[in-house]
Amino acid sequence: MSVTAPGGFEAGGVACGIKPSGVPDLALVATVDRRPVPAAAVFTTNLAQAAPVAVSRKHLRDGHAAAVVLSSGNANAATGEPGRADARRMCEMTAAALGCETADVLVCSTGLIGMPLPMAALEAGIPKVAAVLGSDEASGHAAAEAMLTTDTVRKEAIASAEPAGGTSFTVGGMAKGAAMLAPAMATMLAVLTTDAAVEPLALHRALDLAVSDTFNALLVDGCTSTNDTVIALAGGAVGHAPIDSEGGAFHALVASLTEVCDELATAMAADAEGATKLARVVVRGARSAEEARRAARAVAGSQLVQCSLYGNDPYWGRVLSELGASGSFIAPERVDISYNGIVVCRNGVAMPHDELALESAMARREIEIVCDLHQGMGRATVRFTDLTHAYVDENMGTS
Amino acid sequence: MSVTAPGGFEAGGVACGIKPSGVPDLALVATVDRRPVPAAAVFTTNLAQAAPVAVSRKHLRDGHAAAVVLSSGNANAATGEPGRADARRMCEMTAAALGCETADVLVCSTGLIGMPLPMAALEAGIPKVAAVLGSDEASGHAAAEAMLTTDTVRKEAIASAEPAGGTSFTVGGMAKGAAMLAPAMATMLAVLTTDAAVEPLALHRALDLAVSDTFNALLVDGCTSTNDTVIALAGGAVGHAPIDSEGGAFHALVASLTEVCDELATAMAADAEGATKLARVVVRGARSAEEARRAARAVAGSQLVQCSLYGNDPYWGRVLSELGASGSFIAPERVDISYNGIVVCRNGVAMPHDELALESAMARREIEIVCDLHQGMGRATVRFTDLTHAYVDENMGTS
Repeated sequence: MSVTAPGGFEAGGVACGIKPSGVPDLALVATVDRRPVPAAAVFTTNLAQAAPVAVSRKHLRDGHAAAVVLSSGNANAATGEPGRADARRMCEMTAAALGCETADVLVCSTGLIGMPLPMAALEAGIPKVAAVLGSDEASGHAAAEAMLTTDTVRKEAIASAEPAGGTSFTVGGMAKGAAMLAPAMATMLAVLTTDAAVEPLALHRALDLAVSDTFNALLVDGCTSTNDTVIALAGGAVGHAPIDSEGGAFHALVASLTEVCDELATAMAADAEGATKLARVVVRGARSAEEARRAARAVAGSQLVQCSLYGNDPYWGRVLSELGASGSFIAPERVDISYNGIVVCRNGVAMPHDELALESAMARREIEIVCDLHQGMGRATVRFTDLTHAYVDENMGTS
Repeated sequence: MSVTAPGGFEAGGVACGIKPSGVPDLALVATVDRRPVPAAAVFTTNLAQAAPVAVSRKHLRDGHAAAVVLSSGNANAATGEPGRADARRMCEMTAAALGCETADVLVCSTGLIGMPLPMAALEAGIPKVAAVLGSDEASGHAAAEAMLTTDTVRKEAIASAEPAGGTSFTVGGMAKGAAMLAPAMATMLAVLTTDAAVEPLALHRALDLAVSDTFNALLVDGCTSTNDTVIALAGGAVGHAPIDSEGGAFHALVASLTEVCDELATAMAADAEGATKLARVVVRGARSAEEARRAARAVAGSQLVQCSLYGNDPYWGRVLSELGASGSFIAPERVDISYNGIVVCRNGVAMPHDELALESAMARREIEIVCDLHQGMGRATVRFTDLTHAYVDENMGTS
């Protein structure tokens, strides 16, 4: 299970010396025949985009790519024109090692911001990682391992699709990103592969749909750091007619991309830096989906709500206050709030409940807060974690 | 120095038993002759407004008030219609004790959300606090003490104005609020008094101006909790013609209200729960003041920036990333960032600097981060604090 699960792709990972600790820090994913295939990406919306984001955007203009090279330990962000030259050079070296065009290589980096990339390590490392590429499962794992920063576990997923009357296909993916609350090591990255044949525009649309309900439903917004990137490559090894933006095969593609993204996003949430709780807030009954999202993000982003969860404290007053300040419309005295199914607030005031049952529900690692605004049909879910002593430890220094 | 500094006002504070610890928890400010005077207020913009906010808004419709009663330990928020009846009853009891109209009494509460007010304590306490009112300094201090929750010190300030060709007057104020990062005990409250005579509309305008540059420049927005309230009373004891919205006297009024609010806001920042740093971020060179404010709030609100300060770490990459994600326009490669006067980022990339001087600058309690966007004339300052282990301790439980 990984980016090598769909036919037509190879992957690999090595240690090239960017990270002082000597653990793997350079990954590569490529088509087996080194030919470009339809590719799509969702990049950070941050105006301070990192050098590799700028270069990958440019290389993706034609909607095709043959390889993705990923380095970890240094974000190559806030590095100016020299940083962009370094990112281009990573693509050149990868193209030379693989025998493809430079413009068909996409590049991602993750790690600390504001320092030049150690290019000597990459000059030696890129030929090395190109030499170990394989289409077996272990090679996929090696790539998934080499893209990590503060993550404690590899994040990989696969899904299969069997569209009615169409050809079955597979989607594989790998990701890094250990803190939803904006990562200390800068970023979330994901690479998805599929053996489906897909028209470039349809792939772009399907990826957008998959990301908006998964990575972008992690607090606060999956795409705000300098380097955030999700890339999808559609190799077409199954040999059917390319999927366009209509019909059952497209919906099967969206469903399987979403399944893989959801599994990767859940793994990122579970691995969040210093967290003891895996929480999600569901806002329903908002006037619109957009208002539900805004309200859910306000609750999930509240340091006070996050601290309460760390203390197993179902302090719903803070939740109600965040809903009221979110900018979305609420009538406070129609709001219901529950923690893990136990209603603690009904019509905006305290609701008597079984204190012992609530205490036991709050002690669980998974916490679901449901807020019903009773205003309409808008609904949204945002995943988040608690704010802990360990989170402060992890983020108070970069060294 | 306090609300009793301007002539024409009395104040007092007592312990009435709302707080289990038995410390003072009921304050009262009133005009000496119990007659209503021009009054203005800025209330929370939170849609989940507390009961006392709803009642005070109504009582202030005529632009006049004779007294403000303040209780601490219980916010009377998320308490529904019974809560509003309790807030109205507080005004009735105060009016009865003072001999004024119920509609001329404003009411504020601060403390935990979602629990009924202990009315028996207030029934006994309100006559008691009315009986101890005095216009001396000690009475002002007693009122300022009785409005506190998690605050560790009283917050009081005065300012004097001598408008050219006009009559001199005084502004006094008291406030509570110990955490800018949204307080555990729900709220910020302030009461300002002046012996100037002011037309109600001019007082309202002057207070708005004073609050926007002071309390509302505390992260995130001074006015988002359920109970936030700033009230100004203009008694007119100096006996001049009422100040209207034009001319030098109005500007002197705005300046002195701003001076008092600024001192109170600084005191709130300095007393923030669990903080070790008193920080401010200045964004200049934005395309507009509004864009500067949005960018400054994004930096100040960043948990990662806050954790960095706790660790004395000048990690400017996080600042640049927050500016880029703020929604305000930046060209990353024109941005300069400094910490306490030492430039660490110029034109969006690392700037060589004296490491030892920077280390020593970061060890100070006061940290000023200046971000110059070089896009225009927009400028804003937001005060904030660091995110610490003690902050997590303070907010992980309500008991």
